Amino acid sequence: MGLESIISDIEISLNLEKDAEIVYKSIKPEVLTAPSQRSKLNIKRDKKKILFKIIAEDSHAYRASLNSILRWVIISLDILKLMKRGDI
Amino acid sequence: MGLESIISDIEISLNLEKDAEIVYKSIKPEVLTAPSQRSKLNIKRDKKKILFKIIAEDSHAYRASLNSILRWVIISLDILKLMKRGDI
Repeated sequence: MGLESIISDIEISLNLEKDAEIVYKSIKPEVLTAPSQRSKLNIKRDKKKILFKIIAEDSHAYRASLNSILRWVIISLDILKLMKRGDI
Repeated sequence: MGLESIISDIEISLNLEKDAEIVYKSIKPEVLTAPSQRSKLNIKRDKKKILFKIIAEDSHAYRASLNSILRWVIISLDILKLMKRGDI
């Protein structure tokens, strides 16, 4: 197929810098060890922004990496919300 | 939820500059008129790279915009492949 690569920088801004720090620390190991032959991930943090980079060979690998990233961030935020409410 | 925004730059490189030109011209109207209250899209081209920007308020709006973009690019490439093979 005519597609050579998909490279993307994704900047997820959270409301609170504290939340960004917690989410970043909790998902960083997942991001850096995510097993994929066809895509590479990187993660950084800048205050309340979590910065991801995805380098993928095709759209399937890109979509899979992106879905993983979004899922990790959303799960972490959901857990944080429960903790703040004292539910866990 | 703790998420404020998702902003991403996506660079899709195609094998041929000619393909990038055709795909860019064919999907640009879709990208610029895509109806969404919760995300904004932009598209540019640089030789054989098509450059997208998504600014979304939440992960659902982001995912919807991204899926549309990937679908438009893949459909355009599939049609190009069929045309080159003389099937259409």
